[in-house]
Amino acid sequence: MNNTDAIGIFDSGVGGLTVASAIHSLLPKESFIYFGDTRHAPYGDKSKSTILDYSRRISRFLKASNCKAIVIACNSASASAFKELEQDFPDIPILNVVDPVVTEVSSLGAKKVGLIATRATVRSQVYLERIRHLDSNAEVVQIATPLLAPLIEEGFSGTKVSQGALEHYLDDERLANLSHLILGCTHYPLLQAEIESFFGSEVQVLNSANLVAEALKDLLLHKGLLNQEPMEKASMRFFVSEKTEAFRDTAKLFFGQEIQLEEKLLPA
Amino acid sequence: MNNTDAIGIFDSGVGGLTVASAIHSLLPKESFIYFGDTRHAPYGDKSKSTILDYSRRISRFLKASNCKAIVIACNSASASAFKELEQDFPDIPILNVVDPVVTEVSSLGAKKVGLIATRATVRSQVYLERIRHLDSNAEVVQIATPLLAPLIEEGFSGTKVSQGALEHYLDDERLANLSHLILGCTHYPLLQAEIESFFGSEVQVLNSANLVAEALKDLLLHKGLLNQEPMEKASMRFFVSEKTEAFRDTAKLFFGQEIQLEEKLLPA
Repeated sequence: MNNTDAIGIFDSGVGGLTVASAIHSLLPKESFIYFGDTRHAPYGDKSKSTILDYSRRISRFLKASNCKAIVIACNSASASAFKELEQDFPDIPILNVVDPVVTEVSSLGAKKVGLIATRATVRSQVYLERIRHLDSNAEVVQIATPLLAPLIEEGFSGTKVSQGALEHYLDDERLANLSHLILGCTHYPLLQAEIESFFGSEVQVLNSANLVAEALKDLLLHKGLLNQEPMEKASMRFFVSEKTEAFRDTAKLFFGQEIQLEEKLLPA
Repeated sequence: MNNTDAIGIFDSGVGGLTVASAIHSLLPKESFIYFGDTRHAPYGDKSKSTILDYSRRISRFLKASNCKAIVIACNSASASAFKELEQDFPDIPILNVVDPVVTEVSSLGAKKVGLIATRATVRSQVYLERIRHLDSNAEVVQIATPLLAPLIEEGFSGTKVSQGALEHYLDDERLANLSHLILGCTHYPLLQAEIESFFGSEVQVLNSANLVAEALKDLLLHKGLLNQEPMEKASMRFFVSEKTEAFRDTAKLFFGQEIQLEEKLLPA
């Protein structure tokens, strides 16, 4: 494994691009390979075994592409496949999008933590269990908010539609007196300002993209895998299992700049 | 083939239940087998070849279950797989959800027809081509409305969310002076009242569920395949490729009554 090798980042679709963007901002010298499994998106309502199958096949592709680390930039896959991927690929350091934000919320001494996420992430209880593991006194409330990802992908952030959906999901007495709210889906940073304005200043809203980028930097430093070459040599490649109009239209929204897509079928 | 055999009905998910419901109302003596491909849902943004692959595998299952007819209760699959399924299964009469509504709109002498549908259906141009084939003077305007299906599935019909999304999609000058609007997705009947109230009485809104049920009745009559047994002997079975919470929660909304789900993996 070489420190000029690329970082592998994957998600079911475009959402993980918010994580890729944070990594690219913090570590501009690093090359990366992004894989969006658009052929099987969304993962949010699929079973653990299905998500695990797809995650393994994507990781085989990233390993075959000589990635020096893998970032699971998808909450559903982080919840359903992280431990198994660590076992399957013991030579490659693997990060998920859950642990960095759980560590952060616990170090902040959060009293009552809310989580909004897809059904699969809520059902997995991954945030609940990991927060309680670090702080057995923390109160954690989970709310599934399944329309938020599609409405963000379709460009309805900052409209009556997002406002109506957020009111429906967040005006919930279980969320009273929160100290912190975790955005448990990589799409949700695009609604962060609206969510913050819904709750006002008492609630600190946490998204994992920046926290994952920092955790990745620490890990690469620790392993001596940070790239030392000039920034100009860094490359970014974006693969999807199926080129879809939805991905093309929204990738820029999520990554912050135009990208070139390559199509790649998953290995069996 | 026996007239007591079941009718096969399939969709990528719950939407086709609006068609199953219309068939059950019109033909209560008929048994049917419904297949919702929840493992691969939604089809709306997938490619023709992917949708065709899944449709073939579902049809093999329905044929193996002795279905006397197959109803493609999904606009994306009707657009991407109908002709190929007719070739693959020449012994089984196959209906799609496009032709009955196209025949109707053409017999009504529509001047300017609007279509709202998923991206896949719009991209396929199936409505456009078939309407123009029957009436070369008809003006047809297609609008992709990708957020409508998820918002209906998530129970946001009749809210600020559906209102905002409909205003965004329908307040479009291309739709001025419509005579007819086709609801080109099996989910959309659940928004029909809102859409009618948006346009007012000048625009006639057509959904295909009832028209497909009538076309199926004509076909079975014509082939001598209508069931003559008493209604009590009719059975309904509902298969999904993956039991999902979303399906369970919304099936009743779409079918109009509680249903029992069975899980069935697609043949390879």
